[in-house]
Amino acid sequence: VRSPVENAELALLLEVAGTPKPGNVDRERDHPDLRFEHFLAGAVGARAGFAMAAAGDPLGESFERAIAGMAAQRGGNTQFGAVLLCLPLVAAAGAEGPAEQTLPERASEIAKDTTVDDAAGFYRAFEHVDVAVDDPPAALEPLDVRRGSAAIPALRERGLTLWGVMEASADRDGVAEEWVEGFPRSAESAAGLLSATGPVGERVASVYLDRLTERPDTFVATTHGEAVAERVLERARAVRDGNETAEALADDLVSRGINPGTTADVVAGGLFLALQRGLEV
Amino acid sequence: VRSPVENAELALLLEVAGTPKPGNVDRERDHPDLRFEHFLAGAVGARAGFAMAAAGDPLGESFERAIAGMAAQRGGNTQFGAVLLCLPLVAAAGAEGPAEQTLPERASEIAKDTTVDDAAGFYRAFEHVDVAVDDPPAALEPLDVRRGSAAIPALRERGLTLWGVMEASADRDGVAEEWVEGFPRSAESAAGLLSATGPVGERVASVYLDRLTERPDTFVATTHGEAVAERVLERARAVRDGNETAEALADDLVSRGINPGTTADVVAGGLFLALQRGLEV
Repeated sequence: VRSPVENAELALLLEVAGTPKPGNVDRERDHPDLRFEHFLAGAVGARAGFAMAAAGDPLGESFERAIAGMAAQRGGNTQFGAVLLCLPLVAAAGAEGPAEQTLPERASEIAKDTTVDDAAGFYRAFEHVDVAVDDPPAALEPLDVRRGSAAIPALRERGLTLWGVMEASADRDGVAEEWVEGFPRSAESAAGLLSATGPVGERVASVYLDRLTERPDTFVATTHGEAVAERVLERARAVRDGNETAEALADDLVSRGINPGTTADVVAGGLFLALQRGLEV
Repeated sequence: VRSPVENAELALLLEVAGTPKPGNVDRERDHPDLRFEHFLAGAVGARAGFAMAAAGDPLGESFERAIAGMAAQRGGNTQFGAVLLCLPLVAAAGAEGPAEQTLPERASEIAKDTTVDDAAGFYRAFEHVDVAVDDPPAALEPLDVRRGSAAIPALRERGLTLWGVMEASADRDGVAEEWVEGFPRSAESAAGLLSATGPVGERVASVYLDRLTERPDTFVATTHGEAVAERVLERARAVRDGNETAEALADDLVSRGINPGTTADVVAGGLFLALQRGLEV
């Protein structure tokens, strides 16, 4: 039986392998400079940080270690959001807690208990890889994540914890929203993966499409604007309703460099939860 | 920078992702009951055994642990040969040795130093997964690997080490041959991977085809007979010479259930060596 750390790494691998997953790198599609093998190396590299979180190390340090390892490939940002989403869940799986508590519930407690030091680790992680983010409002410029460790004095001055950072960006970042809301879309993805039949790769594609039809992808909104994110959602609904094929949408989005990364991150979280609950590969 | 353990796991992942790799599961092809995701889970599961070998644990125990982990998926035998081939190389990467010694040289010393206990661990590994092997000659029936731990008394009686087991099967098993000969085809594969250009997935496919044109695959010989193995080699040469496409050969071999697994194992060994020498992903 696999450990939580093994399941976290496998979740990242199964996520990228699921196909067709319109707009994202999958088993059959690469973006020009972001290829399948970058995700394989990213998952292998992230594992050391998952191991730290499962062993009870602080989330911030664990996250920075995971991202440093993930970044040891030439594709750039492969799984930043997926690692961020999975990390409290992995920490929860490695922690003691009341038997009746679900993994997302325990993960939420761990997330709420994060410190300013955890926020500092999160900021340092941005020094290892370029991550697409929105410009902050002018008043929050000192806290721009792209400043990396240069922003740490401002974090300390304001007493901002990692939980506080997630709260502040939950309205425009679907991963932060999962943290703040208690991982509802990850849990729903896990339920979908466990109740489906067929090879895991096909279940991943199906659950991904379900999530894509529900909410505009926040990574697409950040990188291409709200209107494009809205349009992707509409086309995902057309696929679900049989008016467009998933393959055609996948090829079109990849050719335009549009990748709904946040939706993929949520599926990775769902895969981790499903594997912990016994999803067989 | 990745550790030897991370590189070993990544070698298994990059091997299966390389495409087209005629006859084997690759990024674009599955066998009916042996799918891409089984290899992902197999690689994740094998890592604990690689970690033991890198830390200096006995090869037999490390191998059994790797195979127990690898087998925690529903596809059956995914990477038995690749793990067996890589394990002494991983142990060598974790060990001290003279600076002028190559990794294959150090791995050969470790392989020669294996014990009867290591052979026992190797035999126990067969209890975790079904592996296609030839029937032994009648006199060697007590040492049939398929007997698993039931064969251990016969091993002890004869004082057979893991090195001795490999020597005894080197003439009909290309992985055992790599052990006994000092990993020459793995080293050649590493050189090919490092000198090629382009994405790693394409380099893997190219090096795999090179190896397939050199020698009949011993796994194909075991599972389908010498004549079929010889014919696969001829067709691989036709691909190399431009008289058949790799894709056509891949589709045909997969449809007939022919998979040149030993050739893939050698490429995995080459990937590990190349990653240790700085192959960038």
